[in-house]
Amino acid sequence: MRTYLECIPCIIDQTIKVAQQVTQDEGKREDLLQKVLVVLSNISYRQTPPYLGKEAHRVIRKVLDNHDPFLKLKREFNQVVKKLYPSLKEKVNSSSDQFSCAVKLAIAGNIIDFAPGHHFELMKTIDRVLAKKPAIDDTESLEKDLKKASLILYLGDNAGETFFDKILIEHMPHGEIYYAVRGSPVINDATSEDAYFAGLDQVAKVISNGSDAPGTILEDCSEEFKNIFKRADLVIAKGHGNYETLNEVKEKRLYFLLMVKCKIIARDLGCSVGDFVVKKMGK
Amino acid sequence: MRTYLECIPCIIDQTIKVAQQVTQDEGKREDLLQKVLVVLSNISYRQTPPYLGKEAHRVIRKVLDNHDPFLKLKREFNQVVKKLYPSLKEKVNSSSDQFSCAVKLAIAGNIIDFAPGHHFELMKTIDRVLAKKPAIDDTESLEKDLKKASLILYLGDNAGETFFDKILIEHMPHGEIYYAVRGSPVINDATSEDAYFAGLDQVAKVISNGSDAPGTILEDCSEEFKNIFKRADLVIAKGHGNYETLNEVKEKRLYFLLMVKCKIIARDLGCSVGDFVVKKMGK
Repeated sequence: MRTYLECIPCIIDQTIKVAQQVTQDEGKREDLLQKVLVVLSNISYRQTPPYLGKEAHRVIRKVLDNHDPFLKLKREFNQVVKKLYPSLKEKVNSSSDQFSCAVKLAIAGNIIDFAPGHHFELMKTIDRVLAKKPAIDDTESLEKDLKKASLILYLGDNAGETFFDKILIEHMPHGEIYYAVRGSPVINDATSEDAYFAGLDQVAKVISNGSDAPGTILEDCSEEFKNIFKRADLVIAKGHGNYETLNEVKEKRLYFLLMVKCKIIARDLGCSVGDFVVKKMGK
Repeated sequence: MRTYLECIPCIIDQTIKVAQQVTQDEGKREDLLQKVLVVLSNISYRQTPPYLGKEAHRVIRKVLDNHDPFLKLKREFNQVVKKLYPSLKEKVNSSSDQFSCAVKLAIAGNIIDFAPGHHFELMKTIDRVLAKKPAIDDTESLEKDLKKASLILYLGDNAGETFFDKILIEHMPHGEIYYAVRGSPVINDATSEDAYFAGLDQVAKVISNGSDAPGTILEDCSEEFKNIFKRADLVIAKGHGNYETLNEVKEKRLYFLLMVKCKIIARDLGCSVGDFVVKKMGK
């Protein structure tokens, strides 16, 4: 998906939040913002939003001289969700349709997203999501396709959300499952550390995609990742970033699981902000 | 008032709205936005927001090759308020406290502001403003000071809002009154054309401030304007832009009349977004 003009203030809002979180020095904050403005003034908006995000966050990390400015935040999210994990599992186990409940829960976990700047109201979101039907609901088809798939690739999104992904994977048929994370830190996206912290290695093979984009830009990814992506019978892609970078890949059996967090994605999917979606592509 | 980081996405939002209004060409919109990003990446945020706005809108007009991209919008506002004018006058004339009602109405007129992107709900705002007390209310002091003042300078804000200003001026004691407008078009700010359209020349001397900033940057203004500003016994400044550029001028008897439209101004004034304010400075 291309970058729309309205994505620019969103990336800038996000930059300001980063700046305010990581330094009290007003001059440094201004410098950070202005360097990101330079990036955004000099890049083609035909690229995807995560491509712009990748370039912006490279600059942010450089200006801050900090390889992982969100490390503390990610660890906090991990701790918060770790504590919730037993009760989340219990919600699924006591449900009359465990798979469908696990799918919904995995989408609810997508609220853990520092990027679009939404208030982090996890338990409220979980209850809201579990109570209603997805606006686009290919859950049945997903369950059917999973049963037929030998090689499954699951693309993670944020740290902490990893625990929700683990629950869904535990309720998936036992094929060969890969759980992919970003190759290096970008925003609060899950990296290997977060996947291992959630114990995803107990239920899947954890792999890095080799890229520092907050999405899955295939040409940026490692050969190992691209090979698995190519071979996979089914790909589950979580969140905005993965959708924005893969929604034009029509040749794969791709399923997008996400919470709709902005008007651009809502328009693209034909639904509303706040909706949640289980969407099969390339039907 | 300096520019805060949060002002930047606001200026960018405004640029996007302009771009979407004035051209259907996506490439031109992108070009416009990117050129504004260059301006904002290369300017000191110690300057006021209207200083940044001035530079941004110079670029916008240049890219569009259009001296006055908001001309149509300003004329629409002028026509809308012209029709309301008799009923607005009647509201004031039938009020038990005509001066106070005229002040409130002049603030309500400040909602006509394309810039911060608020929905233009004029009659609703008028009724809301007339029904409640200003959050900061120096109306009594203003009325008293106006009676003592020989030379009064009234700084206008937006086209259309001019009609509301006219009503207030009609209810002011008869000193020598100057009504100042921007020196040339910027956003939907009132210029001479708008002042004459509202008939402000019947109740005041209409003067241009000689500047294309969406506020009153004194060093940018003409000698004629600066001279009147210096000599004035009382200055009434309408709207955000005039507040942001003059709130640090403490030596004058300045009164700010405005609707609080963003968090930055709300924080600065110690009130809430949506509040309206009659504030005497340099007490």
